[in-house]
Amino acid sequence: MEDMSSSIKIMMNPKNVAIVGASSNPDKVGYSILKNYLDLGYKGKIYPVNIKEESILGLKVYKSVLDIPEPVDVVVVAVPAPLVPNIIDECGRAKSKTVVVVTAGFAEVGEVELEKKLVETANKYNLPVLGPNCVGVMDLGSGVDTLFLPAYKFDRPGIGTLGFASQSGSVAGNILDVIGGENLGLSKFISYGNASIINETDILNYFADDEDTKVLVFYLEGAKRGKEFIEAVKRIGVKKPVIIAKGGETEAGAQAAHSHTASLTGNYQVYDAIFKQYGFIHSNNLDEIISLAKIFDKQPLVTGNRVGLITNGGGTGVLATDALYNNGLVLADLTQESKDYLRKVMPPIVNIRTPLDIGGDADYARFNDAIKTVLNDDNVDVLAIIALFQTPGADSKVAQAICNYSVDSKKPIVVISDGGSYTQTHKKIIESSGIPVYSSPEMAAKSISALINYAKYKEAASKLYE
Amino acid sequence: MEDMSSSIKIMMNPKNVAIVGASSNPDKVGYSILKNYLDLGYKGKIYPVNIKEESILGLKVYKSVLDIPEPVDVVVVAVPAPLVPNIIDECGRAKSKTVVVVTAGFAEVGEVELEKKLVETANKYNLPVLGPNCVGVMDLGSGVDTLFLPAYKFDRPGIGTLGFASQSGSVAGNILDVIGGENLGLSKFISYGNASIINETDILNYFADDEDTKVLVFYLEGAKRGKEFIEAVKRIGVKKPVIIAKGGETEAGAQAAHSHTASLTGNYQVYDAIFKQYGFIHSNNLDEIISLAKIFDKQPLVTGNRVGLITNGGGTGVLATDALYNNGLVLADLTQESKDYLRKVMPPIVNIRTPLDIGGDADYARFNDAIKTVLNDDNVDVLAIIALFQTPGADSKVAQAICNYSVDSKKPIVVISDGGSYTQTHKKIIESSGIPVYSSPEMAAKSISALINYAKYKEAASKLYE
Repeated sequence: MEDMSSSIKIMMNPKNVAIVGASSNPDKVGYSILKNYLDLGYKGKIYPVNIKEESILGLKVYKSVLDIPEPVDVVVVAVPAPLVPNIIDECGRAKSKTVVVVTAGFAEVGEVELEKKLVETANKYNLPVLGPNCVGVMDLGSGVDTLFLPAYKFDRPGIGTLGFASQSGSVAGNILDVIGGENLGLSKFISYGNASIINETDILNYFADDEDTKVLVFYLEGAKRGKEFIEAVKRIGVKKPVIIAKGGETEAGAQAAHSHTASLTGNYQVYDAIFKQYGFIHSNNLDEIISLAKIFDKQPLVTGNRVGLITNGGGTGVLATDALYNNGLVLADLTQESKDYLRKVMPPIVNIRTPLDIGGDADYARFNDAIKTVLNDDNVDVLAIIALFQTPGADSKVAQAICNYSVDSKKPIVVISDGGSYTQTHKKIIESSGIPVYSSPEMAAKSISALINYAKYKEAASKLYE
Repeated sequence: MEDMSSSIKIMMNPKNVAIVGASSNPDKVGYSILKNYLDLGYKGKIYPVNIKEESILGLKVYKSVLDIPEPVDVVVVAVPAPLVPNIIDECGRAKSKTVVVVTAGFAEVGEVELEKKLVETANKYNLPVLGPNCVGVMDLGSGVDTLFLPAYKFDRPGIGTLGFASQSGSVAGNILDVIGGENLGLSKFISYGNASIINETDILNYFADDEDTKVLVFYLEGAKRGKEFIEAVKRIGVKKPVIIAKGGETEAGAQAAHSHTASLTGNYQVYDAIFKQYGFIHSNNLDEIISLAKIFDKQPLVTGNRVGLITNGGGTGVLATDALYNNGLVLADLTQESKDYLRKVMPPIVNIRTPLDIGGDADYARFNDAIKTVLNDDNVDVLAIIALFQTPGADSKVAQAICNYSVDSKKPIVVISDGGSYTQTHKKIIESSGIPVYSSPEMAAKSISALINYAKYKEAASKLYE
């Protein structure tokens, strides 16, 4: 079997593609997939395959992949499960390079024999197959998107540096939609369902080498090739941060996973230990995953844990201080120079200490003075700003000031802010500069801590392994 | 000193009010407070007090509370800190019933003597004072709102059954804004800052007896009257659920709290133990507090922990199963009758077990059959529905079906759903029926667990204490 990660590369940017089960009925998966290739900027040749139709969306339809005049890079298969092994056989004979099977109804519903037949057929031709029971791949750069979720239900992400792999289609749809709503940019996405041939190990290896991907989010149920999986974890861990969620922590969860992707989830503690050992950031909380990914996406790695905390709200500053210390971080002790300067520019009511509470009436000038001083202080490794936009002085100019400091900052900057529509608007302004905004001190502290821990791991591992 | 909780009652619904420091300058706190009394439906008489002005916003201005022709129920004080003790003295001589001091600049910034003078003056006249260093009170029913946050920065909550008390003004503004954005209803709100006279104990007693409040959210830094505080905790705990956040968990956090409200935060573990003992739900995570409150606001209390979990996404079902078991809950084992019925109405691809994965293509009919059956199953105590609106079949009709089951349900219902704008729209539809929607299985499981634990506490405590 050839290197599967290079097969994934082909799927992401194929010269040509065949869609078996392409349909002119907008309710069919085969319609949505074809339409995506047509609409989203894909530049290669598209061959719809359907035994009953002559032409779909203006394209000539073929009866079989065997009728297509050239071998294709990717065949996307969206026909009923019992027909799939035969299609795979045709792909093999037609010398197709890769196959994506989105169809469900295999081992996950007890159809073990059918899946075995699929695998045997693919292996006969050395054919790399993604799926079955998956939603395929997405590469916004090449215009490839096999997802068949209705476009209007779904905030499609823009192009960016966050990679995402998911064994589950539902977790995938959910997280992609959140990423789109959060205005984070996506590099590549892969869903891989039952992992009958291409599996988590191949995907980790693919993303390890993908230069467009700076940070990877991964939802895993079970890993098939234990030893190689660990090698792949180790390999990618030293290259880039991976936020991993692993379903099947409990016995009941493991049973549910088996009904879902026919996965054997294995011993959760063993997985957790492997993830820890190789620098993965492990969280099964869907509220946390994207929050954790955000800090890695645009902020620099640092190993120091001294946080310069600025706040325009006293109580939130108290809770943030607790959260920092509970997550292994400390408040930075500002240099005398900073203190002297701040004493000069801040009103008397401001205590010159961290958390630096600049007051509920803090405006642009006060925020700007505080940020400039704390960010440039040698005793500060990370800057955390609590900006409560309910207060009289905090407005778009404050948001803009925060954005300005994101340019060329060698230190990570995070913002803590939560509220209704006015705050959400300002959150988007700040996040457009790459600075993550967290709705709670707790999540901010967890994310800073994850960044520092990963930076330390990477530093140590780079020395050890290179 | 008279019963302070009755003084709070007067502040919430006063016959008449004086605003000392009322101003015609829109940038001044004294303007915002006066304008709120004028604009938000307050029916009583309003007396602006300002030594320099004749008339503000069409109202006659008085030079001092002593010039007002009748004693007033509430005097709101918004003048510089050094002037406050003298104003308090005038309030005492004018036989004002209660005073709210929003002014900051007392013990929290080291002005211990000034605060002492305030307290001594108030005590001389037996005068109940809220604050200083607070944002006052809010009762949407009576039109009282002393908050001086700019209205356009702030999603004002509607009237409801959620009470909220906060020692911190910033935490208050933040959470009120979130409550407004979440479309939760507020009963009453109190901020109490330095707690120089009226403190947390009085406030707990007030909310214990307030019939408009079904659930209370409380942000506390330190408690002053230890023994009475514990009695108040015990008293309210058996009556209604209280979600409490306590700043000053760590030593650094405690120091920050001292700079904030001059609080002595005390031993965190002792507080935590007291909260646990008396059924309080304790969380310092600002992301969790409103999520926890939501389930208590409209859902019935139950003591059984068997969760009927329905999902239209397999992977999310796996993570939810893990989350349930990690939070002391179990998947319900459906009755044979339910299983037989579901086998009849569900397509063959649906495994008839919990989590009941009704498939990524589940539509209104399938959701409705599943919900009806699982909700009415005798083996089910709580219904949890994962409704991923990215999927082809899930739409407003599904949201409507979920809403319909909220009517007269004796069992709590929660929904798990997350995503971008389409999902957020449907989340709002569902929450309008009182069913909480959680963005993660983890938060849903925590909330269900908190509800059951509180129900058990209340049941046991009611027997013990009554």
